[in-house]
Amino acid sequence: MVNEKEAAGGLEWRIKVADGSSKTLTPEAGVGSRVLQGLKGLIVGLVMKLWKFLKKSWDLGHKDPRKVIHCFKVGAALTVVSLFYYMKPLYDGVGGNAMWAVMTVVVVFENSVGSTLYKCLNRVFGTFLAGFLAIGVHWIAIQSGEKLGPFIVGFSVFVLASAATFSRFIPSIKARFDYGAMIFILTFSLVSVSGYRVDKLFDMAHQRLSTIIIGTCLCILVSMLIYPIWAGQELYTIITRNMDKLANSLDGCVAEYFNSSGGSTDSNKESNKDSLGYKCVLSSKASEESMANFARWEPAHGRFNFGHPWKQYLKIGASLRSCAYCIEALNGCINSENQAPEYLKKRISNISLKVGSNSSSVVKELANVVKTMKKSSNIDFLVGEMNSAVQEFRNHLKSLPTLFIPQSLHEADQNPENKNTEPTSTGVEAVPLMDIVPLVTLASLLTEIASRIEGVVDAVEELADLAKFKPMPDDKTEANQPTNKVVPDQHKEDETMKTLQRV
Amino acid sequence: MVNEKEAAGGLEWRIKVADGSSKTLTPEAGVGSRVLQGLKGLIVGLVMKLWKFLKKSWDLGHKDPRKVIHCFKVGAALTVVSLFYYMKPLYDGVGGNAMWAVMTVVVVFENSVGSTLYKCLNRVFGTFLAGFLAIGVHWIAIQSGEKLGPFIVGFSVFVLASAATFSRFIPSIKARFDYGAMIFILTFSLVSVSGYRVDKLFDMAHQRLSTIIIGTCLCILVSMLIYPIWAGQELYTIITRNMDKLANSLDGCVAEYFNSSGGSTDSNKESNKDSLGYKCVLSSKASEESMANFARWEPAHGRFNFGHPWKQYLKIGASLRSCAYCIEALNGCINSENQAPEYLKKRISNISLKVGSNSSSVVKELANVVKTMKKSSNIDFLVGEMNSAVQEFRNHLKSLPTLFIPQSLHEADQNPENKNTEPTSTGVEAVPLMDIVPLVTLASLLTEIASRIEGVVDAVEELADLAKFKPMPDDKTEANQPTNKVVPDQHKEDETMKTLQRV
Repeated sequence: MVNEKEAAGGLEWRIKVADGSSKTLTPEAGVGSRVLQGLKGLIVGLVMKLWKFLKKSWDLGHKDPRKVIHCFKVGAALTVVSLFYYMKPLYDGVGGNAMWAVMTVVVVFENSVGSTLYKCLNRVFGTFLAGFLAIGVHWIAIQSGEKLGPFIVGFSVFVLASAATFSRFIPSIKARFDYGAMIFILTFSLVSVSGYRVDKLFDMAHQRLSTIIIGTCLCILVSMLIYPIWAGQELYTIITRNMDKLANSLDGCVAEYFNSSGGSTDSNKESNKDSLGYKCVLSSKASEESMANFARWEPAHGRFNFGHPWKQYLKIGASLRSCAYCIEALNGCINSENQAPEYLKKRISNISLKVGSNSSSVVKELANVVKTMKKSSNIDFLVGEMNSAVQEFRNHLKSLPTLFIPQSLHEADQNPENKNTEPTSTGVEAVPLMDIVPLVTLASLLTEIASRIEGVVDAVEELADLAKFKPMPDDKTEANQPTNKVVPDQHKEDETMKTLQRV
Repeated sequence: MVNEKEAAGGLEWRIKVADGSSKTLTPEAGVGSRVLQGLKGLIVGLVMKLWKFLKKSWDLGHKDPRKVIHCFKVGAALTVVSLFYYMKPLYDGVGGNAMWAVMTVVVVFENSVGSTLYKCLNRVFGTFLAGFLAIGVHWIAIQSGEKLGPFIVGFSVFVLASAATFSRFIPSIKARFDYGAMIFILTFSLVSVSGYRVDKLFDMAHQRLSTIIIGTCLCILVSMLIYPIWAGQELYTIITRNMDKLANSLDGCVAEYFNSSGGSTDSNKESNKDSLGYKCVLSSKASEESMANFARWEPAHGRFNFGHPWKQYLKIGASLRSCAYCIEALNGCINSENQAPEYLKKRISNISLKVGSNSSSVVKELANVVKTMKKSSNIDFLVGEMNSAVQEFRNHLKSLPTLFIPQSLHEADQNPENKNTEPTSTGVEAVPLMDIVPLVTLASLLTEIASRIEGVVDAVEELADLAKFKPMPDDKTEANQPTNKVVPDQHKEDETMKTLQRV
């Protein structure tokens, strides 16, 4: 490891020089040695910076080796396409246009199969369409004579480039054909102003198109055959990971609130990390959307068919985010300075933990449904459990007012800060409303979270219908809920009725 | 307008054909007329679709005319660069490489000045660096002889392409040099495998670089001189707009809750639209980040210097979002089915509205600070007001427990749904805790929002320091708070003390 002190020393020396100060720490040293020392400091500083950068890069690659593999894939594809220059027959075949194959590989090769396919197809069709149109315009320009021709070409470039640029602003086109529109403009302007004769143009168009097709095929093959990264799989992983994180956060938040006084530091840290997992959910919208856009270009892979309802994952993501907003608010409210006294917290800790764990087990079950791609017959039971826990929490709160005795206005005015009222020995307690504010807020937000989780349930069930998930085998169902002997359908109806009665 | 019925009729007919059904609505019509009708329906359907698409595009352009202007700018830049092909001396000057100027314009011209500059500079420096390196490698390959040469070139392409691709994953490089890294790979592979002699390479490199510089200069000039769209200005607009929306949402949410029974439908709709403005704040992270990335490439423009602290706007954006999360939770909680009775709502409506309006006026004042780019001496006063309103709200809640009389457990069990308890004539009221749950939640969330608004205040004050905002002229301050005779600084100290005492 490089000595950090030395680097700091070098920096200090340079600052002194910049200040124009004549004092030095080592007056006996000559100018030469000082310059040498300064240079040394500078180099050491640079090496330090480089070292840090390399270390960060190494960590990045170590954390996600697929990124490193992707880099090697790009390198390999480029090296292969470069061979065109060295193999005489191939080079002659495409008439020196091999450059376009190299260029295609560089700009088209993306991280995921979906984005590579999106760019490849857009490039091929954009080039084809624009080339076709441009040859037409070129032919008209030539027929119109030498004077009018350039104006026709110029005008058509202006109009089509403007129109294609505008189309890139339209959301539905931007999502699918953004790159194609750019390639369209590029090819159209290149071909229409190239000034070649039409017969030579056909030759050129043929060569250009064939080199582009060679490049795209190579990209598609390499990205699909060597350690493929599927955008659909990525989206699926993000969603299931977010579900797990949300469930852990919910558990963690509630547990942290009620265990804040006890517990070792290590386990606290661990639970703190867990309970902040929802923050990932808050900020994953952009990546979810781009993955869903790319996923629809992908062929069947793994457990996903072509035409898998990827858009539904976005709905699930949105419903997860709406839960995460509430967890964020919950986290803020229960960490505020206004805390409920311990004895009151203890009184509702069991039921709060039950609501929290029931809610999170619904989310975990949903994550399981998506992970196994099998409909769960358990989910209605769990939703019912969650709703009954919420209802129980409410009933518990309803019984709390009996704890209050009227505080006279006089007393309240005189002791507004009298928060630490302890339970008296008479069994009747005076609890200021302020003390139960955090608990009531917790209850309210947990209720809201539970109702939003039902939104997630709906979204996942819609996905299960759209993607035709099969029901989970019965033996697993029974293993999960050994006491529940009701037939799933009847059970579902039963639970729905219960839920309806409760709401 | 095209007749919609006709289109539907055509569709119906086609469905019938697809079903293989022999029944028709018009049995007297022959096969020919049916085919004709079908074709008519098909065409009308297509025209309808096209019409809808065009109408949507027109609306898009009408809503943001700058997009249309951008399209014309791209068209104009491309037409100008195409002239190179028609002007003999210019064309000869760049030796047929004019293609690269066209290509540069197409791929480099972006919507905002910042993104255009980012791509231009990345393109120029990426090309320059890669060309330089590639010529070096090429020279070494030639020196190594015909057998070893291709291996050296292939190996260097593989290594450098892999390394450059990997660098695109490193966040700090991705934010600034993503495009440059791609251009580096492109140029390096094109030059190093091109198979030219080194002296010809220098010629080519010179031409390539000059055409690229011509293209980039044209892009920069057009994007900066004709109706420029500055990324910095956009970011600034997003942030101030989000502040206004957040303030309006806060006002709207609280007002809507307390006015839900009265008011005309029109004003309700209006306030509903206002109160949902915070949803924009929730989803603006991605656009804020990309704007901030581009803004740092921009020169001084309007009221912004080069090196304006754009990153601070991201911090303000993040703090606004953290408020928006709470408003989202608030919106969910107060719209839930569990509602407080009207007479209780009335009792806290004044103070809640006060907290809401005081909080929103802090946000509005902050928006004003950012809009006018002048420090406000009013802000500390407003924050003080907000905190005192929050404290008043708490005191108000503290006085509420005196409203309760103990409910016997028996009674509570028998009438769990007895929510509509009216105030009795004796002056002592029985209010179940469940009835005040929404009010307590409102109080809690408003308190949390107020404390998060202080985070926004900190972020804006940091911006004011970093960007060296000047203090607002005194006359304006006095006009805003005519009753406040305290000197701003003393006043500030005073408020800080008050705040400290309260917290």
